Amino acid sequence: MRRFSSRGGALLPTEYTNIKPFLPSLPPPPVGTDGSPVGPEVLSALFPSGMIQHEITMEPRVPISDQVRDAYKVYRPSPLIRAVELERVLDTPAHIYYKYEGTNPAGSHKSNTALPQAYFAAKDGISRITTETGAGQWGSALSQACNRFGLDLDVFMVRASYLQKPLRKTFINMHGGKVYASPSKLTESGGSFLEKDPEHPGSLGIAISEAVEVVLAEKRSCYSLGSVSDAVCLHQSIIGQESILQMEEMGEYPTEIIGCVGGGSNFAGIAFPFIEQVLTGNAEIKFTAVEPTVCPTLTEGKLKYDFGDASGLTPKYMMYTLGAGFVPPPIHAGGLRYHGMAPLVSHLVKLGMIDPIAYTQEKVLEAGKKFTLIEGILPAPESTHAIAAAIDSAIDARRSGEEKIILFNLSGHGYLDLAAYEND
Amino acid sequence: MRRFSSRGGALLPTEYTNIKPFLPSLPPPPVGTDGSPVGPEVLSALFPSGMIQHEITMEPRVPISDQVRDAYKVYRPSPLIRAVELERVLDTPAHIYYKYEGTNPAGSHKSNTALPQAYFAAKDGISRITTETGAGQWGSALSQACNRFGLDLDVFMVRASYLQKPLRKTFINMHGGKVYASPSKLTESGGSFLEKDPEHPGSLGIAISEAVEVVLAEKRSCYSLGSVSDAVCLHQSIIGQESILQMEEMGEYPTEIIGCVGGGSNFAGIAFPFIEQVLTGNAEIKFTAVEPTVCPTLTEGKLKYDFGDASGLTPKYMMYTLGAGFVPPPIHAGGLRYHGMAPLVSHLVKLGMIDPIAYTQEKVLEAGKKFTLIEGILPAPESTHAIAAAIDSAIDARRSGEEKIILFNLSGHGYLDLAAYEND
Repeated sequence: MRRFSSRGGALLPTEYTNIKPFLPSLPPPPVGTDGSPVGPEVLSALFPSGMIQHEITMEPRVPISDQVRDAYKVYRPSPLIRAVELERVLDTPAHIYYKYEGTNPAGSHKSNTALPQAYFAAKDGISRITTETGAGQWGSALSQACNRFGLDLDVFMVRASYLQKPLRKTFINMHGGKVYASPSKLTESGGSFLEKDPEHPGSLGIAISEAVEVVLAEKRSCYSLGSVSDAVCLHQSIIGQESILQMEEMGEYPTEIIGCVGGGSNFAGIAFPFIEQVLTGNAEIKFTAVEPTVCPTLTEGKLKYDFGDASGLTPKYMMYTLGAGFVPPPIHAGGLRYHGMAPLVSHLVKLGMIDPIAYTQEKVLEAGKKFTLIEGILPAPESTHAIAAAIDSAIDARRSGEEKIILFNLSGHGYLDLAAYEND
Repeated sequence: MRRFSSRGGALLPTEYTNIKPFLPSLPPPPVGTDGSPVGPEVLSALFPSGMIQHEITMEPRVPISDQVRDAYKVYRPSPLIRAVELERVLDTPAHIYYKYEGTNPAGSHKSNTALPQAYFAAKDGISRITTETGAGQWGSALSQACNRFGLDLDVFMVRASYLQKPLRKTFINMHGGKVYASPSKLTESGGSFLEKDPEHPGSLGIAISEAVEVVLAEKRSCYSLGSVSDAVCLHQSIIGQESILQMEEMGEYPTEIIGCVGGGSNFAGIAFPFIEQVLTGNAEIKFTAVEPTVCPTLTEGKLKYDFGDASGLTPKYMMYTLGAGFVPPPIHAGGLRYHGMAPLVSHLVKLGMIDPIAYTQEKVLEAGKKFTLIEGILPAPESTHAIAAAIDSAIDARRSGEEKIILFNLSGHGYLDLAAYEND
């Protein structure tokens, strides 16, 4: 029995998959504070032109630039692995596969969008990127991408994670990036939250406000977003595309696809190319999105227009949200501490194509430990949400006898998150 | 151009390669304090019977047990990668390949021998293993192996590394292993060093003394060694065997092979199967072993009989040594802080088949940073010694125009060693 799919270069996609032209309806467009749709001119104050084009395109296939594809070749395709040991221990008729995005330089799926974003910035003659990061996976990926394309980088890192994962700062510094704990005194947005609470743990929404504020005040810099936007979901689609070819190589096809959700991008990455196959009548698959109970955007939030950041500096997006002011407790899965959800993922939840569930930190870290002991890969706390759901589904299969083929996204490794397992 | 070799299961060896029957002469046998060769009965107080058999066998091919091979399948074959970016930046005619042993659960080559050692212990009805660890790679690998085969584990971790890399303890604890900073008060050996210096940084030699002392006093436990011994070199030979097939798949053959050396096992692993090809007249290859200048066993030590540990509890081995009492300064490459060298590696150095060189910590960490920025893989401080030598050799090739094919062993990742790069 094969356990690994091939890592041959032929698997690496030449185009991104755009789910939008296949949807029965589109999410309503982002709007300004006056309620009218924002045009590309609003976005151009924040993003390079290539990113705006990726944000609005309705082409079903979008070419990957040669420069970006060369950078992808350093670490892609990522391996697809069958969890044979886990299947054995769970005594399940289910087959469990995982796409492992943690083998790359930054240790997570985030490089998939960091590279095109840095490339587009450099192409527009921009010299500096400013961004936010939660647990540090995004900041790490972007620091490598900026290093490759010759850009400076400033990262506002959510304070709770900054304190929990100090080595992420070291990693970003190694690649030439600067890191500031958020909320910081460097911006008005940050200062206003620090005034209320000098020990404020921060949130992704606040860190986004700080990054956006800096970019709006500067000319030669741009903003980069690690999740949520249509363009980011587009870039992550290479995960699902590779998975389709790799599952084929393994002689199977998934009946259930599982991913964790914070802003929604790793989930979109593995799911959207398969959702295209469902929407075109070529497959039947159950999609499960797993979020933390303390930040239950999809399971308890409302679908409405809301700001992407905490201070109301971004346009409003139609998305499931807990309110832009929501500050989740400082759980170890810092990358899932976001009040909103990608509009495209939100729309698919509304259409009934994605089932959201919420798990406690205790449950997911337990699953992460189990996975480490059995499969021998130490997962990021974010990714343990997907693992816990895959295990639950495989146990269900044991009870029902159903021959499920489960595929989940193991979005990143947990070597820089080990303290999460220590303190658990 | 292919960048990755296949990870298909067909590459995984079914037998270890034993270099001993191919050598023109054998290293003198280990001796007791009276100078006469030690027999298997001395070894059986420390090691399971399977390990003793692997230590003394003269068969050229030694079968890998099915149980061990099943465990290898979780992470092997490891990838062989061509460093195309590094070649480009160095502007060298050399082709640079690396075998990356850091993708496995424990993050280094150490799992290759941890698994058979734990398997042989369990097979003999032993319930507990005691060992030493330097930087923690060996302790991590053995904790996973013990977890797999149902054994308890006690690890004496060199204090300098215990303080530098606290998350290694967390990692070993996660797998059910216990960790003690060495020298400790738990043993007479440890106590005697602590008496001289309560802040003693420790050394691999001292930690080995502590582990051996514990095992000699107990019945149902055994000792495991992470490097040095013939059996460990035998187990690591799967690295070189896979490399031969993977280089073939890439359509090339190495003209130079480079590895870092502490006890010598990762170097032996990649080199010995190729040395067999040289000894049988099928190849011509330059072999380079790189050690730290502050622990210059091969470049400044003497070839003589010496104890494997600091307190004289083990047999004496014919090896290059700095003296069993030598305590190197607490460099970040804790895995290379050993006073001796594998007898087989020592013997091949004496025969002139391996060229040893020594590099400073400053130089190797600089090379590690460069590699991280260019190739996007964060190496362990030990492995950066091999990287630095590969870079030097590639730069030489640029000057001479020589079309070298360099292969080096990237023995482990540096995610748990990030502080090394921070403090540099």
